[in-house]
Amino acid sequence: MERWDHFTTVEQMEEVSVKLKEQACAVCADTWESRVKNQTPHCKLGDSGICCRICSMGPCRITPKSPRGICGADAGAIAGRNYLRMVAGGCSAHSDHGREIAHTLYSASADGNYKVTDEKKLMDLAAEWGIETEGRDLYDIAHDCAYKGLLEYGKPFGNLLFLERATEERQQVWQREGIAPRAVDREVTTAMHMTHMGNTALPEALVRQSLRSGLADGWGGSMMGTEFTDILFGTPKPTNTEAGLGCLDKEMVNIIIHGHDPAMSEMLVVAAEDRDMLEYARSKGAKGINICGLCCTANEVAMRHGIRMAGNFLQQENAILTGVVEMIAVDVQCIFPSLGPLSKCFHTKFVTTSPIARIPDAIHMQFTQETAREQAREMVRMAIDNFENRDPAKVFVPENMKQKATVGYSCEGIIETLDTVTNSHVDLRSTYKPLIECMDSGVLRGAVAIVGCNNPKVRPDYSHIEIMKELLKNDILVVTTGCSAQAAAKAGLMSKEAKELCGEGLKRVCTLADIPPVLHMGSCVDISRMMLLVTGIAKDWGIDVTQLPVVGCAPEWMSEKAVSIANYVVATGIDTYLGIEPQVSGSEEMMELITNGTREMVGAGYIINTDPKELVKAMIDGIEAKRAAIGI
Amino acid sequence: MERWDHFTTVEQMEEVSVKLKEQACAVCADTWESRVKNQTPHCKLGDSGICCRICSMGPCRITPKSPRGICGADAGAIAGRNYLRMVAGGCSAHSDHGREIAHTLYSASADGNYKVTDEKKLMDLAAEWGIETEGRDLYDIAHDCAYKGLLEYGKPFGNLLFLERATEERQQVWQREGIAPRAVDREVTTAMHMTHMGNTALPEALVRQSLRSGLADGWGGSMMGTEFTDILFGTPKPTNTEAGLGCLDKEMVNIIIHGHDPAMSEMLVVAAEDRDMLEYARSKGAKGINICGLCCTANEVAMRHGIRMAGNFLQQENAILTGVVEMIAVDVQCIFPSLGPLSKCFHTKFVTTSPIARIPDAIHMQFTQETAREQAREMVRMAIDNFENRDPAKVFVPENMKQKATVGYSCEGIIETLDTVTNSHVDLRSTYKPLIECMDSGVLRGAVAIVGCNNPKVRPDYSHIEIMKELLKNDILVVTTGCSAQAAAKAGLMSKEAKELCGEGLKRVCTLADIPPVLHMGSCVDISRMMLLVTGIAKDWGIDVTQLPVVGCAPEWMSEKAVSIANYVVATGIDTYLGIEPQVSGSEEMMELITNGTREMVGAGYIINTDPKELVKAMIDGIEAKRAAIGI
Repeated sequence: MERWDHFTTVEQMEEVSVKLKEQACAVCADTWESRVKNQTPHCKLGDSGICCRICSMGPCRITPKSPRGICGADAGAIAGRNYLRMVAGGCSAHSDHGREIAHTLYSASADGNYKVTDEKKLMDLAAEWGIETEGRDLYDIAHDCAYKGLLEYGKPFGNLLFLERATEERQQVWQREGIAPRAVDREVTTAMHMTHMGNTALPEALVRQSLRSGLADGWGGSMMGTEFTDILFGTPKPTNTEAGLGCLDKEMVNIIIHGHDPAMSEMLVVAAEDRDMLEYARSKGAKGINICGLCCTANEVAMRHGIRMAGNFLQQENAILTGVVEMIAVDVQCIFPSLGPLSKCFHTKFVTTSPIARIPDAIHMQFTQETAREQAREMVRMAIDNFENRDPAKVFVPENMKQKATVGYSCEGIIETLDTVTNSHVDLRSTYKPLIECMDSGVLRGAVAIVGCNNPKVRPDYSHIEIMKELLKNDILVVTTGCSAQAAAKAGLMSKEAKELCGEGLKRVCTLADIPPVLHMGSCVDISRMMLLVTGIAKDWGIDVTQLPVVGCAPEWMSEKAVSIANYVVATGIDTYLGIEPQVSGSEEMMELITNGTREMVGAGYIINTDPKELVKAMIDGIEAKRAAIGI
Repeated sequence: MERWDHFTTVEQMEEVSVKLKEQACAVCADTWESRVKNQTPHCKLGDSGICCRICSMGPCRITPKSPRGICGADAGAIAGRNYLRMVAGGCSAHSDHGREIAHTLYSASADGNYKVTDEKKLMDLAAEWGIETEGRDLYDIAHDCAYKGLLEYGKPFGNLLFLERATEERQQVWQREGIAPRAVDREVTTAMHMTHMGNTALPEALVRQSLRSGLADGWGGSMMGTEFTDILFGTPKPTNTEAGLGCLDKEMVNIIIHGHDPAMSEMLVVAAEDRDMLEYARSKGAKGINICGLCCTANEVAMRHGIRMAGNFLQQENAILTGVVEMIAVDVQCIFPSLGPLSKCFHTKFVTTSPIARIPDAIHMQFTQETAREQAREMVRMAIDNFENRDPAKVFVPENMKQKATVGYSCEGIIETLDTVTNSHVDLRSTYKPLIECMDSGVLRGAVAIVGCNNPKVRPDYSHIEIMKELLKNDILVVTTGCSAQAAAKAGLMSKEAKELCGEGLKRVCTLADIPPVLHMGSCVDISRMMLLVTGIAKDWGIDVTQLPVVGCAPEWMSEKAVSIANYVVATGIDTYLGIEPQVSGSEEMMELITNGTREMVGAGYIINTDPKELVKAMIDGIEAKRAAIGI
């Protein structure tokens, strides 16, 4: 058992949470744990997707006594509509994030707040989109790319440009099945229209539009988000950082950046490095300024700047409960409204910055591209000024909750790493061939993308971490994003030492390539990177995406974004293993469609199991079956 | 009491419904009446807007024991998000309908299925939008207008073009309050994004975005729908027709067209007039082909072709229950999924034509612009072939349920009518001045726009009809659209004889102008006409829209579209009287915001009263207060 000594267990994390709950009790604040108790048991009808609130004749509920709503919608129609609306919500969130980044790129200038960092990526995109580059100003090219990207949200005709990045086979499947997305926003609107009272009641049509709206996210808005973010702030490369609540530092001014859109967080990171800010912090008795990330913002800034990750979704309250957070600055998505009242129990300043996420009991400073730099400095100053308001009686920092992590495995980062193990005299460089050879030979049995949120319906982080450990033991490489990535990092699974947890094959690969066995690919929008990764592997291997010994897994998902993601991962041809049941179980037809029906359409579907041990076993079996099918 | 003799009472309508329910019982079909019983009582938490199903940590419900959901969202956040999502659903439905019509115009050609009918309206729009017309082909101009219209759904920058049609005062208010909509689809996506887990929890911000998304409907998608429909199929002018289930004809092949988008229904109307179709029908023993409209489709084709209106929303099942409907052809919105199983109990062919509304147990014939004419003929042929399958034992046509109606009061139709009462030697023509003089002098006390659906939560049609009668008695002119318009028509309130029900002032106006006292302005998307009507009146009067003695009323609304409409009507500065409570009553903050909070933002709000007698009294008081405020 000693090989686990370096790592942080879920039990250790939970011990810390218990102590932090005592902090909450002391100030009479409620936390998600207490609210879960109050909200349990959940409404069964809602949880199984057969409660309809789409018009005001209802609400209607499907029961044995009432098999149809007032309009005549049955369980399949109601569960299907609710499901598609979840995808619409998720697609809108991810894609609108992508749009904001496109607007940020559109505002970039050589002497402005936002600049182009990855010129090569910009030039590649310009070439891909047929934008003239010869002899043109870099920023003119950037603005043309941004404008073309913005039109992807609303162009009246044609399909999304990025679909052409997919394999030939996928593009044909999407056309054949009528699920190739048009403009991003249109697929949101179509989803909302189809699910409006008196429209589609046929579950199959709702599932098809779910796939299509999902694709508009993964191969549209999210992919643009990733692409433009890399152009603006740099394409991630392997970088060292740390993760866990222990990254908060009692001696420093602690600022937590939380949310998703890097436009705000990048500016804060830069502002916190300004020499005058550092001096100001010191003048107030602090050792320095400690920026830590939370949720996907953490992933974004960790990958590009090595900024440390305080924690994931269900730790946002815990961070404040340490009593050492001078400021928590948020932009969009996954922000608990409870941060408002909770921050009032401490000295913590809770700052909202986006019109998309206005929250009561927050200080609202609407970020704009023109004023971003100065606003970021103002926020850092506000945090520094708040340092002296810290109440020592309310401080508890779990200093041992800290793990080393190597992060930043973008596709480009992976390719560069693979190039280090090729023999430059005989091997092709800049391909996924070395990875394919490992999978083909069986040294690696396959790969799993583990993504998604935490959800109190299961033991938080436990599924992420236990599933990863089991996969590693079975020589299955893990790539990860979002809150799952942070769970891995907090546990130590992203340290290079984690190879000790692996089977012999994977361990050898980790040693040779000098990588951790769990590769951090970024934030949730960066699941688009995973789509390009499997596409690249399929192309280099010469087989279909559906044939790869690769699956996706969201063991603790909770948000609509996750439902959108699951849809585009499945539509891309990758089986998706879910540890939380989608809320459609009240309709047998819908359950059949999402687990089997989509297989006939796109060659993949969901496998659902709320027991992580059974879920990981099913994954390993699924990967071995894929291997057997292609005779390896 | 004899003055009511010519009219149809709600009691008489209900007697017919009772008989038709016997038809349903005989074939063991269920109807909305039986389903309402099964669904009663409704879930109180859902009905008051404080049940959250936006992420899969829940569902969460606000109760005294659990004042916050798991994320910390309180009643205001949950009710506000649900409310905004209703607006997003409604905006998407109306606007997507408008987009389909824009695509239809884009496909129009001199020798194609769709042609330009109102050239003047096209030229006016081209001039408004700065599209070159001089020496250009009509269809090139049409395509440019359509394309520019389509871009309104997704342009990356700027506000909607039609906002410039509003009064200066409104445009300033919208800018000042930050609610001037950008591209239509973007306002849907923003609404979905803001309401995603972890985003806006501040009710005021949710209400603001509701106004903005609503405006994207009323001054965006809906207005485009109306404009392009008029260009394609003609701007309505006063036309005589009939309304009621008695319009179905036992001797004829009956085809019901039901839904909203005129692209399908117009083609069926044309196809049913083809001489060979008529001969084919006669060869099968029918006297002819009787096309009748239902729901908003009825409004569209009645206004342009005098096609008779079988009924409104809650009569869609009744129509089939008459046993004489050979076909019910539908496109989008407000289609009961129950029509699938119900049509199977009769010989009725139930045909769906749009990918937006796929319904089980229907024959699906996907309509396309290229094949529309031939598909329409095929459908008519199918209906004729089905005539012989009618079962005489199942026939019951309430022949006395039929009233005369004069419909088609577009803004242009109203202006033309007003021109008939002006003295061409001394008066300005083509203005609303005569109407303004009537209001100014007190001959008319004001005007009410009565719109919206039926809802079994109140006695169907009763509120519409009783409120109208009371207003007429009080010299208040009624303009109406949607299912409300059909309720009026079925009751006889759109016949010119209905002036007998009016006070002396309104009666004199009706006689002079030769109009019914209830003016049919079209379908639900045509509420955009009402926005232009009040704008025109305000401009001609030289006062603000908020000052006009004019209010809106939706006494029996049920759909998300109605919530979107209510938002843009309020945002346009018109108090809106609701007979069904919006599902936010679980949050005092939301109730306050929608009834009073919006008054500070845009100068209007909701007045809610589920008792139609009290509601109409409040309206009359509201109008008199508006009069007093401007000293008339």
